[in-house]
Order: sequence, then structure tokens, then C-alpha cells
Amino acid sequence: MAGFDLPRRLAAEALGTSLLVATVVGSGIMARSLTPDRALALLCNTLPTGAILVVLITILGPVSGAHFNPAVSMAMALSRRLPASDCAWYALAQFSGGVAGTVGAHLMFGLAPLALSTHDRTGPALWLSEGIATFGLLAVILAGLRFERSAIPWLVGLYITAAYWFTASTSFANPAVAAARSLTDSFSGISPASLPGFIAAELAGAGIALALTTWLLQPHVQPLTVEARP
Amino acid sequence: MAGFDLPRRLAAEALGTSLLVATVVGSGIMARSLTPDRALALLCNTLPTGAILVVLITILGPVSGAHFNPAVSMAMALSRRLPASDCAWYALAQFSGGVAGTVGAHLMFGLAPLALSTHDRTGPALWLSEGIATFGLLAVILAGLRFERSAIPWLVGLYITAAYWFTASTSFANPAVAAARSLTDSFSGISPASLPGFIAAELAGAGIALALTTWLLQPHVQPLTVEARP
Amino acid sequence: MAGFDLPRRLAAEALGTSLLVATVVGSGIMARSLTPDRALALLCNTLPTGAILVVLITILGPVSGAHFNPAVSMAMALSRRLPASDCAWYALAQFSGGVAGTVGAHLMFGLAPLALSTHDRTGPALWLSEGIATFGLLAVILAGLRFERSAIPWLVGLYITAAYWFTASTSFANPAVAAARSLTDSFSGISPASLPGFIAAELAGAGIALALTTWLLQPHVQPLTVEARP
Amino acid sequence: MAGFDLPRRLAAEALGTSLLVATVVGSGIMARSLTPDRALALLCNTLPTGAILVVLITILGPVSGAHFNPAVSMAMALSRRLPASDCAWYALAQFSGGVAGTVGAHLMFGLAPLALSTHDRTGPALWLSEGIATFGLLAVILAGLRFERSAIPWLVGLYITAAYWFTASTSFANPAVAAARSLTDSFSGISPASLPGFIAAELAGAGIALALTTWLLQPHVQPLTVEARP
Repeated sequence: MAGFDLPRRLAAEALGTSLLVATVVGSGIMARSLTPDRALALLCNTLPTGAILVVLITILGPVSGAHFNPAVSMAMALSRRLPASDCAWYALAQFSGGVAGTVGAHLMFGLAPLALSTHDRTGPALWLSEGIATFGLLAVILAGLRFERSAIPWLVGLYITAAYWFTASTSFANPAVAAARSLTDSFSGISPASLPGFIAAELAGAGIALALTTWLLQPHVQPLTVEARP
Repeated sequence: MAGFDLPRRLAAEALGTSLLVATVVGSGIMARSLTPDRALALLCNTLPTGAILVVLITILGPVSGAHFNPAVSMAMALSRRLPASDCAWYALAQFSGGVAGTVGAHLMFGLAPLALSTHDRTGPALWLSEGIATFGLLAVILAGLRFERSAIPWLVGLYITAAYWFTASTSFANPAVAAARSLTDSFSGISPASLPGFIAAELAGAGIALALTTWLLQPHVQPLTVEARP
Repeated sequence: MAGFDLPRRLAAEALGTSLLVATVVGSGIMARSLTPDRALALLCNTLPTGAILVVLITILGPVSGAHFNPAVSMAMALSRRLPASDCAWYALAQFSGGVAGTVGAHLMFGLAPLALSTHDRTGPALWLSEGIATFGLLAVILAGLRFERSAIPWLVGLYITAAYWFTASTSFANPAVAAARSLTDSFSGISPASLPGFIAAELAGAGIALALTTWLLQPHVQPLTVEARP
Repeated sequence: MAGFDLPRRLAAEALGTSLLVATVVGSGIMARSLTPDRALALLCNTLPTGAILVVLITILGPVSGAHFNPAVSMAMALSRRLPASDCAWYALAQFSGGVAGTVGAHLMFGLAPLALSTHDRTGPALWLSEGIATFGLLAVILAGLRFERSAIPWLVGLYITAAYWFTASTSFANPAVAAARSLTDSFSGISPASLPGFIAAELAGAGIALALTTWLLQPHVQPLTVEARP
């Protein structure tokens, strides 16, 4: 983040989150309006989301780190990759950008700016899904930072492409995006009442990923053996 | 563009735009002839378009810059990356190439060379869509030039893949391609009467992207602090 | 594998195999629940599997080699790329991780943890399919190791994407994944009785790939010609 | 091709062409057996073909150049990138490998080894399609060799993904693959009587691409101006 001041970094987080949410919500509306087949609609929701993630992380990563996700910013702060004092600002930019993204998608499709979702998504199976989805997302990001930083945009885009399908929740894995999706009564919406369960599961998954990768990705230092001494 | 003279660069712009338009129009005709499902048809229009963009920008970028789009050429001229005197020639090559692409697609599918589209695409929601689509495209290109030039072919291909779905207009984002698409009465067409609104929105989006990225992508220079002085 | 001790490498193999199997099984359940079209369901099973392979091999390859597959570990041991004493441990981690992946997918979708598959997959055509599928997978990995190690995650992901469709068996190509898939009575399951035939064919295909690539990828050393002597 | 003798190079050409044809034919059979929707079937034929091309060109390119296509080998010979004396051997390996690929696909799907196609594909629109498809393929390869050799596997895979849809012929663009596809009476077949028209169009397209790129990709050498002289 060398060289970019906080206003620019927050603008990048807000812009990126808004385009991400606009893609999730907009492609859901588009897909659902064109086909009765729900698998096809989900596929046409998945591919644009995966694609835009690769793009947004590549172009905004050098400015702000391209988190677009409070769970990611918290993990970065906990692992001392983001100043703790910036974390709340990042989250504010992400939640605000997310709402702007929903409004933008609605206006592009001629809908009212905001509408509360009536789509309940709750219960242990979905919470487990969100926990695993966010665990995986954070593990991918943290391992990417450790081994192959330049691959992170592709890794995140491909991971989310897979997680849309291997979790029962379609893998929100992002508290800011989840909140923004509570404001659309369309294909990708989630009812406000379902938000707390999702967000708690996401944060739990992120924490577990941080703990596990801290152990797993630390190379083992061989102790000096007795034989090696003179 | 070192080393390639204007005729070769214009040939590259015309050839690239013609293959891009042939892909948009041709894949639309093919898809619509094979399925009644409009989401599937749009998907089979999206994937070839995204794929050919990666290819064309990679192979023709070293010759002409691979704009294939008057909005891009104008932004390049305004940011002094293209000599202003070349801009009109580029646009001419792009509009001509676009028409050739429509003719080529029609002949490959056994249709009359040209047919005016009867597909009206108009109204504030679609204009907003085109403005956002072109804003995003230019932001991607300008940030790519700033941070990761070699990734631009993939970034543009993936961005358009997403923008087909997250905008209500399926993201033309290109005045030359829009004009060429007014000459096909098939899946991807746009009625000539709808062109001015689309093109105006595209140019507005491009201008906003140029202004925003000029601010956003400029690293903040830290002023010398008092403490730093001797 | 320098720097990572056996427990971490086995954890990486188990984690990777579990996420791979969770993706195969979970996306199969999701897809089948959303569409009656079996080609669309298979496509929505294919794309997540290919995507997660790119991700998992990239992030866990530096830890354990990212085999996730006993046939791969055996070929690595036979070609002296993996200590023979580690091979059984790797296979144990892979089989265990695979079962965990099936359980995880079932719990995410609200199903009982395990259920024996009733989907028979047997006969010479399917065995030939599995043999060719695994031959191709090993040839891709061994040639990738020889020529372009950093491309292996993409090569494997793309190869499996293709092999889902060009083989009649949808290309399991992995004894641990096959065993884990015998424990789900859903889209991607295989009946336990069909396992021995699949696994035997997979090991045969892997062996043939090892033999062929040993010859094919060895550059020919030109003998000194008579003329070259003084 | 330094270091690999002719037998290994021919084996690589035969193996690569056989896996390419097995993918085209096999995925066509699989797709058509699973869905009545012809666009979906073509999509499930397209994606595996594009994916396997990236893989095969990456892993076999270092051995033989990974032509898998007599039109490519001829262009390479004409541009002195392949010894003329090897060209006929390459073509023989490609045609033989192609037939083996059809046989392999048929056996994997439990069909008779060979069956003449009854699918007529003829007429000026399809010939134009094949000419343009092969023109584009050769232009992509020749420009790739000129500017970005390491990107060629991706460029070819993505180009063919697009060309399946923007041409009316689904872009065979390869005489050896076309011949092999005359031996399958399935989704991807072509009747033997339609072969000569396809192959002639392919060779014409390749020739035009060779001529055009020879001009287009040659940087202009600025003549010394009068003013520059002393």
C-alpha cells in the first residue's frame, strides 16, 4: 500500500465492493429474467462474479489491497498486514460500497433503488456452508500471500466460482456483500433476519483459517541433530 | 507502437474490430438458432466474446495498441498515449472494421450482408447501464496500463464477460461495435434509432473513468514533515 | 517439499483432498437439485471441480506437492520424486481426507453424513475410460514437471475439465476420490461394487503414462558422428 | 525442437492429435446423450476442446511444436520454421493420430470403432466459415510466435472456444481433425463427401493468414530522412 493515502485506499475499497455487489446482484437479475432453469441462472450468476473478482483484485490490489470484505480486512489486521486503525475505515468503505452496488444494479435494471429481501437463508446447514466457504476463502488468500502473491486475483476468482456450487449457501463469504444483498429482493437476496447467522459463521470460518494457516504454512525448522555436532 | 507505421496500425485496428464484431454477431446468431433459452443464448454469446478479446488484444496490442473502440482511442489521446492526429484514423478503421465484421458474420451464416436491426434498446436504465459498462472498461484499461500492462488482454476479456450480465444493456461499451451491431437484425442487434443514446452514454462513462482514475491511481506524495528538516 | 515436515505435508494432502471431494460431491448435489437437464448438471459439476483444482494445487503444492491422489503419489514414488516411505502415509491422508470431504458436503446440504452409492459404473467401456483418463492426467503432470512446473495447477484443472466430458466415466482418475464418492448416494456417486474395476483401471493408466513419458520426454542425445572426429 | 528426434516428435504429434480428436468426438457424444438442447450440447463440446488444447500445446509443444494440424505444419514449413522434409511425416502422424482418437472415443462410449458420418456440411457459407476459422487460427499462431510465444497454448484454446460459435461450421480449421471426424456418426461428425470442400477452404485460409501476417507483423523500418544526413 506504499504510496496510496487513506482516502484513495478507501475509495478503492468502496469502488471495488460496489462493482462486486453490482455484478452479483445484476447478473442474478439478468439471469433470472432470461431463464426458468435455476441451475442455469446460478451458472450465469457464478461466472460473472468469478470474472469480476479477478479483474477488481488485479486493478485495485496495488491501491488498497483489494479486500472488499470485512472478514478479510480483520484477518489482515490480526496478522499485522493492515494497520489496526485502518480496519474500521475499510469496513465502513466496504459496507457503503456494497449498498451503492445494490442501488446501481437496481437502477441499471429499472428497479427501485432498494428493496428488502424476502429470501430466508437460515439453519445449521447453511451456517456450516458459510463457515466452510469463508474458511476456504481466507485460506486461499493467506496461502497466496505466503507462496504466490501475483496469483491471488485468479485464486480468489476461481475459488468463488467453485464455492458458489460446493456450498449449500452459494458462498457469500463476505459480511459487507451479505449486508448489501439483504437490500435486494431478487435472485441473490438474503432476508435481513438471516444476516446475523451468516455473518457470525463467516467470521468464525475466517478465524479458523487464520489459526490453521499460521500452523500449516510455517516451514518446520529442523533442530540440530546430535550427530551434526563436532 | 514503436516500429509499426500507420497503415499497419490501422489494418490491425480494422482487423481486430472486424473479428470482434464477427464474434459478437456470429455467436449470437449461432446460439439463438440452437436454443429457445435466452439465458443460454446470452451465455453462448458471452463466452466467445470474452475469449476472442483476450486473443485479439494479445496478438494485435503490440502493433496498434488493440483499442478496437473509439472510446478507448479517445481516452488514449486525451491521456497523451496516442497522438491526437491518429485518433480520427483509428476511429475510421474501427467503424469500417466493425461493418466488415457484421458482413462477415452474415455471409458465414448465409444471410444478406447487412440488415438494419429492429431491436430497440433505449431509456434511462439502459443508458445508465452503458455508462457504467464503459466506465468500468476504461477504468480497467487505465489501471491495467498503470499497474500490470501484460494482464490487460485477460482483464478486458474477463471484464466484458462479467459486464454482459451485470448491466441491463449487455454492455456494448464501444461506439464502433454498437454501430456495427445496428446493421444486423439478429440476437445482438440494436436499432439505429437507439444508437445515439448508447454512444453518448458510452462516451460519458469513458470520460468519468478517465477523470476518476487520474485521481485514484496517482500515489500520494508525502510532504516533507517539519521533523525531517535539519 | 523442503522445509515442511511430514505432519504438515499430510495435513495439506488431507485438507486438499477433502476440499476437492467436497467440491465434486457438493456441486453435484447442488446442480442436480436445480435442474432436470443432466448435461447442465454435469457442466455445473465440471466447472467448480476444474476451478478448485487450480486453486488447491497452487496453494498446497509448495507444502506437500498437492497430489491429492494415490495414483499420483505412487508415480512420484516410482520416479523417485517422493520418498517411498512417505507414499503410504500420503495415501492414508488422501483416503481419509476424501471421506471427510464427502461428510462435509453432506452436512452442508443437510444430508446424513454418509450413504452408500447405488450408482453402478462398470464394464469395459468405463474401465477403458478410467484408464485413458488417468493416463492423460499422469502424462500432463509428468510433462508439466519436465517442462513447465508453474503451469501444473492450470494444466490439471483444464485437463480434468476436458476429461469430465471426453470419457464415458466422467474421469474420476483418482482412487481416493473414487472411494470417497462411493459414500454418497448423489449425482457423483459410484457404488462400492464398482470401485475395484475403477481403481485397477486408474493404476494401469498411471503406469502406462509413467512408462511412455519416460521415453517420450527424454531428449535424444546425438551420437558423435564420424565426421566430427579429428 | 532441439533435442527431440523425429520418432519422438512424430509420437508427440500423433498422441496430441489423438487426444484432441478424442475430446472433440467424445465430448460431443457425452453432451448429446445428456441433453436435448443443441446449444448446450455445443457448449459442452466447446469448453472441453478449448481446455484440452491449452493442455496439449503446453505439454507437447516443447517436443514437437504441438501442431496437431497439417495446415499449421504446412505454414511452419513455408515460413521455414519446420524442415520441409519433416512436413509429410508430421501430416502422416496427425492423420493417423486423429483416426486413433476417433476409435478411442468410440470404444470409451461403447460404440463400434469407426462409423462413417452422415452429417453433410457443405455450401459456400460453410466453406467461407472454414476459411475464416483457419485464417484466424493461423494468424493467432503466427502472431503469437512473433510477440508472445509462451501465450500460444492459451491463445489457441481461447480462439477455438470463440470460433466454435462465431463460424457457421463450428470451426474445424484442421484437415486431420476433419478427416478423423468423418469417421464418427455422432454430434461432431462430417460426411466424407463434405471433406474436400472443408479441407480446401482450410488450406486457403491458412495461406491468406501467412501472407497477411508476413506484411502486418513486420515492423516498418524508417528510411533515413534527408534532414538526418550531415
